Amino acid sequence: MHIDQMPADQVIELLEKTEQSYRALCQAGLSLDLTRGKPSAEQTQLSDALDGILGGDYMASDGTDTRNYGGLDGLLEAKALFGQMLGVPAQEVLVGGNSSLALMYLVVDFAQRSGFGRPWLRSDASAPKILCPSPGYDRHFAICDYLGIEMIPIPMLETGPDMDAAERAIAEHDNVCGIWCVPRFSNPTGCIYSDETLARLAALPKRASSHFLILYDNAYAVHALTSDAPALGNIRDYALAAETEDHLIQFGSTSKITFAGAGIAFLASSSTVLTALKHHLSFQTIGPDKVNQLRHVRMFDSFGTLQDHMQKHASLLQPKFDAVISTLQHSLGGTGMGSWTHPKGGYFISFETLPGLAQRVVALAADAGVKLTPAGATFPYGKDPNDSNIRIAPSFPNINDVQAAVDAFVICVKLATFRNLANQASNRTV
Amino acid sequence: MHIDQMPADQVIELLEKTEQSYRALCQAGLSLDLTRGKPSAEQTQLSDALDGILGGDYMASDGTDTRNYGGLDGLLEAKALFGQMLGVPAQEVLVGGNSSLALMYLVVDFAQRSGFGRPWLRSDASAPKILCPSPGYDRHFAICDYLGIEMIPIPMLETGPDMDAAERAIAEHDNVCGIWCVPRFSNPTGCIYSDETLARLAALPKRASSHFLILYDNAYAVHALTSDAPALGNIRDYALAAETEDHLIQFGSTSKITFAGAGIAFLASSSTVLTALKHHLSFQTIGPDKVNQLRHVRMFDSFGTLQDHMQKHASLLQPKFDAVISTLQHSLGGTGMGSWTHPKGGYFISFETLPGLAQRVVALAADAGVKLTPAGATFPYGKDPNDSNIRIAPSFPNINDVQAAVDAFVICVKLATFRNLANQASNRTV
Repeated sequence: MHIDQMPADQVIELLEKTEQSYRALCQAGLSLDLTRGKPSAEQTQLSDALDGILGGDYMASDGTDTRNYGGLDGLLEAKALFGQMLGVPAQEVLVGGNSSLALMYLVVDFAQRSGFGRPWLRSDASAPKILCPSPGYDRHFAICDYLGIEMIPIPMLETGPDMDAAERAIAEHDNVCGIWCVPRFSNPTGCIYSDETLARLAALPKRASSHFLILYDNAYAVHALTSDAPALGNIRDYALAAETEDHLIQFGSTSKITFAGAGIAFLASSSTVLTALKHHLSFQTIGPDKVNQLRHVRMFDSFGTLQDHMQKHASLLQPKFDAVISTLQHSLGGTGMGSWTHPKGGYFISFETLPGLAQRVVALAADAGVKLTPAGATFPYGKDPNDSNIRIAPSFPNINDVQAAVDAFVICVKLATFRNLANQASNRTV
Repeated sequence: MHIDQMPADQVIELLEKTEQSYRALCQAGLSLDLTRGKPSAEQTQLSDALDGILGGDYMASDGTDTRNYGGLDGLLEAKALFGQMLGVPAQEVLVGGNSSLALMYLVVDFAQRSGFGRPWLRSDASAPKILCPSPGYDRHFAICDYLGIEMIPIPMLETGPDMDAAERAIAEHDNVCGIWCVPRFSNPTGCIYSDETLARLAALPKRASSHFLILYDNAYAVHALTSDAPALGNIRDYALAAETEDHLIQFGSTSKITFAGAGIAFLASSSTVLTALKHHLSFQTIGPDKVNQLRHVRMFDSFGTLQDHMQKHASLLQPKFDAVISTLQHSLGGTGMGSWTHPKGGYFISFETLPGLAQRVVALAADAGVKLTPAGATFPYGKDPNDSNIRIAPSFPNINDVQAAVDAFVICVKLATFRNLANQASNRTV
């Protein structure tokens, strides 16, 4: 029954029942973790052949000895492979170390202080600001916070960021310097940016200051769970059409393709941007780990091989996503106690409690031994204005633990909701 | 014959002969390179077993799955191994990616802007300054130049930096923030810091501002060429005695132990410094490539195994160093046309021409197809006050090429010297 139609005495009855269930849950001594978008051991095992794949042949296709120094922007064949993944030519790719977050930090820090043209941080301008579609990825927001960049939340729609709100924010604020994007299977809502969103996104720099950057973190570019997951349009084509290619930097990695901690990260941009970044990098390193790049291109001799590999990930992930979604549907569907996404890819399910209940649900779950991402973490400054969003990450635990965790989660959602309803009713009575 | 005793007509005669030799040299069409301190392919081959060494077992000794995210400061067993190399306990080590230069840049950039206590760069102080023992490592100087840190050259002695000059520079200048050091087989002179130098170095922060850092790049810690190479004292012991351990950061890597481009870099410092650096790092990465760290500790199951491995490097390097030094001795010994170091380890031989001739020698060599490190590169701002230092790096070419290159080098040194002598003589005559 939908809670809006529920008589007060039934709320009390169900509350008592749920309190009982919750007490039992707490006594069960669970220790489960749905916090991090980490691949499971079964997933990383899919790439165990990486170590040893070279068979003693450390030479890249152009004769580069990958063991030695050099190659600031990576191996040619790695640029080609990852360029295909991002939909750009090889010469627009820079291949780095194991962390795309490190490349994003590098870019934002560089833009802030030196920049492509002029720095974001200037004495003659107000504090730099970045548009943050929310809910979004907490580590993007943490970079801003750490570097003193103000964050402007932008609502997330099914089609991607609310572009009306983004354009308005640029018009209303001084020194808006960029926008964070996770364009496919967005973290955490799972949405895929529509073509209209991409076109307006690519045109955004023309509305903003001359140093505006589209920080396009395509973390889940090839991470579909289902075969009917829609493709993402090519942002580079839109940027070329809008003549904003010097304002677009795409990021990607194999962290959720091969090894989360020992994959390959890369970025793509125009030659103007790459030249500036390479100059900046040349003071910091003689070059990335080319041996590991070579391992990756030996494992994936074509983009097709990589896509086949991703099917195996999907087979491991889909049952976990199904367990979460079918349990939510079965236990909470039609009750009005929450809503949730049905992602066709990526690593997260985004759950919306009734307003004001997310923190309580997360706290209840923690007390019952189920760790959830802190409520608010998906918003700038950790502040969810509705206190309603909870990010569920089912990838890492095994399927039994995912099931146990989502069963517990449902009890916590019900308990917080019934307590709230009972409380409201007693307030009304008083 | 020593050039000081040489009659003018003999100078003219030898000049003509050397001009002939140089013309022949230029016609020989050499293409040789003595510029970079790179290991040869034979050296990197010594570690070819690294790829595949895990045999499918990606688990660290404490159960960490190295394939997945996490472990911001590296694997325990990697800390232990590299701690032994730097003479510090495991808990004082942070193990990173493939580049110690990246760790040095990270530290200097962080110290400059945020710092350990307070930033180097402050509106109420003059520009930050770093003491640069010279000749030294050009990439240290490049970091300073790029980040706007003034460089104060300090003479290098056989015992390390001239500590009288270092102490004087701190007394005479405002906001002296650190000193670069390559304490064993210094780049390029090959000297080993004496115990007295280490003691005075460790006490240096007490004479300087509260945020002074000893940037101790122990790049050649285990890179002896000969079995009689003196050991280096333990700087940490001196720092503990002087109570300056929060001002000492040691750096090292396996770039010249395993793979130059795909090794492991690390740093060591006090827990205060490590805590600050880890906080700073936590915004930039989820962690380093632990799989590659595991490969390294599997290859070197003890520090002794690593030391044995270094003997193989020495066997490959020593003939090249011998070729250079014996040729210099045979061709230039006793002539007064130059002096050179006799390093017992490291990657370089440091050559001193007569004052004012280094650039000319390097240019002559370049025209004859022999690339040398640009004259001046071993000094801050690329300016050798005497224009006399030339860094010779014999590690990368094969022994025949090293011999051909040093034979050519000798002709260039003679030609520059005789031309200079003849010129001086004709000036005197006029």
